[in-house]
Amino acid sequence: MYQYHVFCCTNQRPEGHKRGSCGGKGAEKLRNYMKDRAKALGIPATRINSAGCLDQCENGPVLVVYPEGIWYRCETEADIEAVLTEHLQQGRPVGRLRLAGRES
Amino acid sequence: MYQYHVFCCTNQRPEGHKRGSCGGKGAEKLRNYMKDRAKALGIPATRINSAGCLDQCENGPVLVVYPEGIWYRCETEADIEAVLTEHLQQGRPVGRLRLAGRES
Repeated sequence: MYQYHVFCCTNQRPEGHKRGSCGGKGAEKLRNYMKDRAKALGIPATRINSAGCLDQCENGPVLVVYPEGIWYRCETEADIEAVLTEHLQQGRPVGRLRLAGRES
Repeated sequence: MYQYHVFCCTNQRPEGHKRGSCGGKGAEKLRNYMKDRAKALGIPATRINSAGCLDQCENGPVLVVYPEGIWYRCETEADIEAVLTEHLQQGRPVGRLRLAGRES
């Protein structure tokens, strides 16, 4: 149904949890930014969703792009912008943001 | 990272919303069932997640299996069981539960 289906972990653990959480590192705001920017850029056939815990808490904030199964750590709006413009618009995964050893 | 990554829409709209919602049709309970059963069955390299609105409200409760991008409507625990045992364990998508015309 979608060319790209993006899932942003927005799971929030209690403050002080030893694993941390994407939600505790600004993931929800970044997800909202990504949705707004994807719409503004007119990226076709793409959906940006939130997701429950993707079990990459220590590496967060993380997101995964399907169907390719490419995992990213995106900490800033600039990181999100890179995934949108380089990967989703131009089809070139953003190597510097990929989770090492996490590609499926 | 995963052989199968399943996203179950658990979005809840207010009661009476004209589109309805997966959350309003028992999606959260079904997602929990799926997680528990996947663990009990020992299905390897698979993760069951909740997701925000997948924009299939009228067809819910829906879930999508990546990387294949196969969409299902699962209304009962028996439906969930079929996806687990036929698709995720045996690699045979469950035709009768697929969303018509929604395969990517």
